[in-house]
Amino acid sequence: MQKPTGIITITTDFGQADPYVAIMKGVILTINPHVKLVDITHEIPAGSIQAGATIIKEAYKWFPKGTIHLCIIDPGVGGDRRPILMLADNYFFVGPDNGLFWPINELKPDIKIINLTERKYWLTDVSSTFHGRDIFAPVSAHLSRGVCPSLFGETTSDLTTLSYPAPYEKKGRLIGHVIRVDNFGNLITNITEERLRAFIESEGFMIKVGKIILKQINRSYNDVSRGNFLALIGSSNFLEIAINMGRASSYLNEENSYDTKVIVEKSSSNNKQRQDIKTES
Amino acid sequence: MQKPTGIITITTDFGQADPYVAIMKGVILTINPHVKLVDITHEIPAGSIQAGATIIKEAYKWFPKGTIHLCIIDPGVGGDRRPILMLADNYFFVGPDNGLFWPINELKPDIKIINLTERKYWLTDVSSTFHGRDIFAPVSAHLSRGVCPSLFGETTSDLTTLSYPAPYEKKGRLIGHVIRVDNFGNLITNITEERLRAFIESEGFMIKVGKIILKQINRSYNDVSRGNFLALIGSSNFLEIAINMGRASSYLNEENSYDTKVIVEKSSSNNKQRQDIKTES
Amino acid sequence: MQKPTGIITITTDFGQADPYVAIMKGVILTINPHVKLVDITHEIPAGSIQAGATIIKEAYKWFPKGTIHLCIIDPGVGGDRRPILMLADNYFFVGPDNGLFWPINELKPDIKIINLTERKYWLTDVSSTFHGRDIFAPVSAHLSRGVCPSLFGETTSDLTTLSYPAPYEKKGRLIGHVIRVDNFGNLITNITEERLRAFIESEGFMIKVGKIILKQINRSYNDVSRGNFLALIGSSNFLEIAINMGRASSYLNEENSYDTKVIVEKSSSNNKQRQDIKTES
Repeated sequence: MQKPTGIITITTDFGQADPYVAIMKGVILTINPHVKLVDITHEIPAGSIQAGATIIKEAYKWFPKGTIHLCIIDPGVGGDRRPILMLADNYFFVGPDNGLFWPINELKPDIKIINLTERKYWLTDVSSTFHGRDIFAPVSAHLSRGVCPSLFGETTSDLTTLSYPAPYEKKGRLIGHVIRVDNFGNLITNITEERLRAFIESEGFMIKVGKIILKQINRSYNDVSRGNFLALIGSSNFLEIAINMGRASSYLNEENSYDTKVIVEKSSSNNKQRQDIKTES
Repeated sequence: MQKPTGIITITTDFGQADPYVAIMKGVILTINPHVKLVDITHEIPAGSIQAGATIIKEAYKWFPKGTIHLCIIDPGVGGDRRPILMLADNYFFVGPDNGLFWPINELKPDIKIINLTERKYWLTDVSSTFHGRDIFAPVSAHLSRGVCPSLFGETTSDLTTLSYPAPYEKKGRLIGHVIRVDNFGNLITNITEERLRAFIESEGFMIKVGKIILKQINRSYNDVSRGNFLALIGSSNFLEIAINMGRASSYLNEENSYDTKVIVEKSSSNNKQRQDIKTES
Repeated sequence: MQKPTGIITITTDFGQADPYVAIMKGVILTINPHVKLVDITHEIPAGSIQAGATIIKEAYKWFPKGTIHLCIIDPGVGGDRRPILMLADNYFFVGPDNGLFWPINELKPDIKIINLTERKYWLTDVSSTFHGRDIFAPVSAHLSRGVCPSLFGETTSDLTTLSYPAPYEKKGRLIGHVIRVDNFGNLITNITEERLRAFIESEGFMIKVGKIILKQINRSYNDVSRGNFLALIGSSNFLEIAINMGRASSYLNEENSYDTKVIVEKSSSNNKQRQDIKTES
């Protein structure tokens, strides 16, 4: 079994103005002063399990095998959701079982789950509003010191599912969604390169996002001139809509770009549709 | 006497866009490359000694004993406020003596204060605008290497006080304030659980914040249904007003929620008041 | 030759909400788990090479000699700009050759530049949109482990220039620009103390920024009363316009303060100009 490497990453929706992240770090360092702490992000929208799950799935595998990923997007804290430790793909995941870790299970189904029930690895006083501090941080710290995963509680096979938007085909079109708008205004979709290529095969195609229509996949932002839209396969292998030196997100006529549909059509079906439109007019 | 553990936390109002925090870290690592640096927050509102003092008091004790807390909210830099090192509760606090450390002194009065006057532990050139870099960072770094606190300057018993809002009783009511709105829009008040319980004893009570009236203390956010207000004792032991899966702060009809009053009334006095109101109408 | 010290700083325009910075850290720690990572800032405005260059030049020298500065402001990623390693002033700089490192070359011209061409120090799969992860992070990590700089590629003397605003004299006036507005609203100009003193010599002078006129250089913010404007030499040796306990930036009648002119006039030339104005009216 993979051994922890002494690195703990932290992903939360706590922001950076409050002392909550630092308090968790203090708790961890009190138990294991030698651990290396790395922030993934603390800017997950408050309570958004889906946004948290997306980021964790994207980031976790770039760390050394044996890294402990402490993930606290926990809107149900103090309720009946279980605190868990999940072992998957030679990494450790510690956090609430609320769907946050479901996408990793889908990707790497050979997982082991432990319900965190052994109170001797928690802080003595456990609040009902901050399990990040009282349960998850100390469990992560003890784990990083080499405590055997099975000692934290009983093994289970239950894992809460997360229903998140997957691309689907309808009337010959591949329909996906924008799942993240990044710092550059790039629209990251949920359509992987594999899914896209399998759909369009060797045919011509059109990608539609709002009023934008793109007919090719470019390699890098610079393949189009400044200010122009392009579609490319981004660094995490998802179809991405961007503007070279601009913000694609600002051209979408919606308050929240996250639910924007991205529609891929093959040129053939597209031609048919065009004819339809013609006969209508 | 407690020895430093090699951890330095940093709390400032510098934000994260400027290079100032990193420059302090560079200065520290030049003196002690083995130190572990942890950010508490750099989002203290510019120059707000009160907000800084609140965060430091809340966070400091979760770190291992012997942690050095470097705190730079220093609107008076270059003026006559003294640079100090304070030893309290087996922690070290380094920063300007402008009230920032007063709440810790109130909590743990067995403190030792050293005026930082020994220039050999400062950078050679000291600016009049960035003592964080030129005095406080190098002092913290030398301290983390084991330099005896008394070598940094002469011991004093002076500590600048901070007048900050404490809850008080008036006409049979307990009156507190919102002292922090956290990332989730929760309203953290200055009323501790002890103070609240001592006031309400075993009687019924009402908590009033703006137009909101709450008649019980809940245990966790999930104790009320989604979108509903509740009162609870937060993770740092203060009375907190929240909305389950919502932002309590957005319902307060004021630009700055920080000064919002929180009023606790016993049911008995409250009944009397109700009658008063009736006779008035 | 200076040896790397095991510290890598990171400066980007990635923001802190996306997983990109953490992914680079994961890549680095996979290659060298013992490295110490320090964030300079990730809030460089997207694609602003000039803002990035300003911050790096201001921050780099406060770190121990031998620090590796990893700098990813890379709007031309995937295009033909070269990835480089630059050795200057006993520091290492890793990033795209797009002008980002030019100001350091101007300051410390005894530099050595290596084109990063040796793919064995890159990740196996190199994307065309995230060289921070695929080239620059792994090169920095291998460098921190002691790989000799010359092994990363061939030595070159080419370095892309950056045209950025330098102060200049025109009609007897010294004209500079605001190059950064810091977290406190202070206006940092590109006029160094040396340049200013050489210009004004021992004469009287006036500093004009928008409608503000200042006739002296103060030592610290507290030298004027609360709410008043002042000019001082900031902690990085540049002329700075500030308000004691206020935000100088909010008084400038422009959307983007960054291009604001700062004009220094000697009292003599100033008198002449006044007369001109009088004859005109």
